[in-house]
Amino acid sequence: MLPQWIIEKKRDGQALSVDEIRSFFEGYGSGAIPDYQAAAMAMAIYFRGMTFDEIAALTDVMMKSGDLLDTSRLKQPTVDKHSTGGIGDKVSLILAPLVACRGVAVPMISGRGLGITGGTLDKIESIPGYRTDLQPDEFLRVIEACGCSIIGQTARLAPVDKKLYALRDVTATVPSIPLITASIMSKKLAENTQALVLDVKWGSGAFMKTLDEARNLARTMVEVGDRMGRRMAAVLTDMNQPLGRTVGNAVEVEESIRALRGEGAQDLMEVTLVLGALMLVLTGRAESEAAARRELEGALRSGEALARFRRMVELHGGDPRVVDDPRRLPAAATALPVPAPAAGVIEAADADGIGRACAILGAGRARVEDRVDHAVGLRDLRKVGERVGKGDPLAVVLARNEADARRAAERIVASVRIGDGQGIVDRPLIVERVLGKG
Amino acid sequence: MLPQWIIEKKRDGQALSVDEIRSFFEGYGSGAIPDYQAAAMAMAIYFRGMTFDEIAALTDVMMKSGDLLDTSRLKQPTVDKHSTGGIGDKVSLILAPLVACRGVAVPMISGRGLGITGGTLDKIESIPGYRTDLQPDEFLRVIEACGCSIIGQTARLAPVDKKLYALRDVTATVPSIPLITASIMSKKLAENTQALVLDVKWGSGAFMKTLDEARNLARTMVEVGDRMGRRMAAVLTDMNQPLGRTVGNAVEVEESIRALRGEGAQDLMEVTLVLGALMLVLTGRAESEAAARRELEGALRSGEALARFRRMVELHGGDPRVVDDPRRLPAAATALPVPAPAAGVIEAADADGIGRACAILGAGRARVEDRVDHAVGLRDLRKVGERVGKGDPLAVVLARNEADARRAAERIVASVRIGDGQGIVDRPLIVERVLGKG
Repeated sequence: MLPQWIIEKKRDGQALSVDEIRSFFEGYGSGAIPDYQAAAMAMAIYFRGMTFDEIAALTDVMMKSGDLLDTSRLKQPTVDKHSTGGIGDKVSLILAPLVACRGVAVPMISGRGLGITGGTLDKIESIPGYRTDLQPDEFLRVIEACGCSIIGQTARLAPVDKKLYALRDVTATVPSIPLITASIMSKKLAENTQALVLDVKWGSGAFMKTLDEARNLARTMVEVGDRMGRRMAAVLTDMNQPLGRTVGNAVEVEESIRALRGEGAQDLMEVTLVLGALMLVLTGRAESEAAARRELEGALRSGEALARFRRMVELHGGDPRVVDDPRRLPAAATALPVPAPAAGVIEAADADGIGRACAILGAGRARVEDRVDHAVGLRDLRKVGERVGKGDPLAVVLARNEADARRAAERIVASVRIGDGQGIVDRPLIVERVLGKG
Repeated sequence: MLPQWIIEKKRDGQALSVDEIRSFFEGYGSGAIPDYQAAAMAMAIYFRGMTFDEIAALTDVMMKSGDLLDTSRLKQPTVDKHSTGGIGDKVSLILAPLVACRGVAVPMISGRGLGITGGTLDKIESIPGYRTDLQPDEFLRVIEACGCSIIGQTARLAPVDKKLYALRDVTATVPSIPLITASIMSKKLAENTQALVLDVKWGSGAFMKTLDEARNLARTMVEVGDRMGRRMAAVLTDMNQPLGRTVGNAVEVEESIRALRGEGAQDLMEVTLVLGALMLVLTGRAESEAAARRELEGALRSGEALARFRRMVELHGGDPRVVDDPRRLPAAATALPVPAPAAGVIEAADADGIGRACAILGAGRARVEDRVDHAVGLRDLRKVGERVGKGDPLAVVLARNEADARRAAERIVASVRIGDGQGIVDRPLIVERVLGKG
């Protein structure tokens, strides 16, 4: 069967067989099928979609194009969490050591940020000495020692996804639920965990701008994980304002450490505990979400979660003293409070706008080859519903220089709406859970 | 503006500006925009379509990517005809010399067949010595001498169309009305004639399988020609049975010569005269279609049309004696009559099936590099509505050998339906005219 006939079949809205998907995308991986045929296929998929079976087949091809983690030597049940990304989302840094306290193993392979702010990997690399490039054997040894490890993707993780993603990026075929699903799932399922919990964010600071899109993505990912034999759950969460009170890299590590002490912002703790409880339930480590939540709160109170984090940092070659002394993290030259232009109630704090303010500071990267500045960002961000007096700080900008700080501050002021409180749109932080069959 | 932003705009259903189309497709022609972005764009156009203004802009870019014929030295009004192609369609061979008799100049650049049967160029190359590769100056000199010339496309005719067409062929993006229109029109308008008449065929043996698709293509091509300042007309014609009584190459030249003597099959003469009359009306050489038709019939009766054809063949280096002695054309080794399996009335003679029978014989090419056998084909084809006795020939197959002949004959029998005549679907040969504003 010629590749163009397979493209034609998809173009005409028919479902492709597993064999057709395998031959097309394995051929793309090997170079037998050129970029231009893959680009036409991606655009046809953009318009026609894919069935869950097709997406599972594509996920499988991309996953198996690279190395799979051999988790058989881990004694605990294995589980991971993936977030579709948002502004101020430092949940992974807290969650991995926290759930590890309850007897699960978390082999977390994270990505760098591409877009307005840094990814988990950029954040954790703020810690002096922390190595994210562990080889599989070392990765597993760290997990055996402390229950979790956060590392970066290697070139051997789902290389066909990497190749296809680069192509999609330049052919206007990124925003396709089937292709997004296969891209995410091929990488996460290569970790070979028994269970996977997804945090699918919606809103101005998320990849999915509407709740419907996010729900569609969540359901699709859960269905595909089901078909591939994983125990799955997804949580739809709000990303219209940043999560927590910091945005950046080092500053988010600092906030994560406070959260591990049980002193995190309410929204940050809520998202972390909901996801963590699902991880324990899916792996059979808790009877119910309520029971799991109580156990996780105990691990925060007891200091066990923080100790687990310290141990993880140490095992990665990082400086564990940052846990007790955040001044050991990279610090910005300038700290500029952003005064509220009026007194009133914060009615909105637009995540996208605040993320862009941090991009101005250098906290993210626009291109793969850009360098992230770990020291910059913002802290003490006021949240929706909070009251401010005129001139009270809306946040404190951490910048390389005064000029950057002023530009970012302007952007923040423009992103925050202050009123009498009547204009607050009531949106649940945790919108809903999507549970798999497993 | 990055190319992917232009793709995205089309993907989202917006009309592109003339500048966007120019920058994208000129970039594609120069190599600045790679095949994979053009493939994604073509698929987005497949799904989203284009406005007439967009198609005109694309046609213009592709037309101007190559040489335009300088027709300014021709004294007569210039006009050409293009057919979307069908089985047994030898109209160009008759029409060019015929209308030239009435004082118009016909610079006809024709294509080779790709698909089930040969194109006009393959047919005329059956004539020993006929050269189709004239350079522009020689082409114009032939037209000055005899009013018409039929030659082949050079690499310098709309090269961006050639590049894009090759890409569409392997990315399942051929059947798109905007892209088909721009492809056809960029080549025909490069001939720089004042008027253009289109024969848009519909039915089993045509590229457009339904009347609606054909009508859409006809209207689109006429609209685009209008926008580009040409006097336009299109005729929708039936291609559910082959045109005339022969299919092949040399055998179609022979039928064309008979037609130029006024002895052509009724359907062949009707299509030729309708198209020819429109060519004379559009160029102001006739007051009405009826008057034009009378003049064309006169040129057939007087022998002037045949003399004009003979002269054209001679000026191209071809052997003019074929006109009087068709045995000088390539002849097949085997001539096998195909007996009717039953007595009755021909209710259908499927053009696609009969075309495929000729492909078995070697009359067409499946790939660009295939060679066409000029000698093979079929003659004496019975038409819908005609009565046959059992064992009467449905056609005579002209083949290289007995085995090919038998395979083709089987195919022909399977393509012809004989009944009591009640099963004939009454379809007009000339469905309708689509006239431009010019």
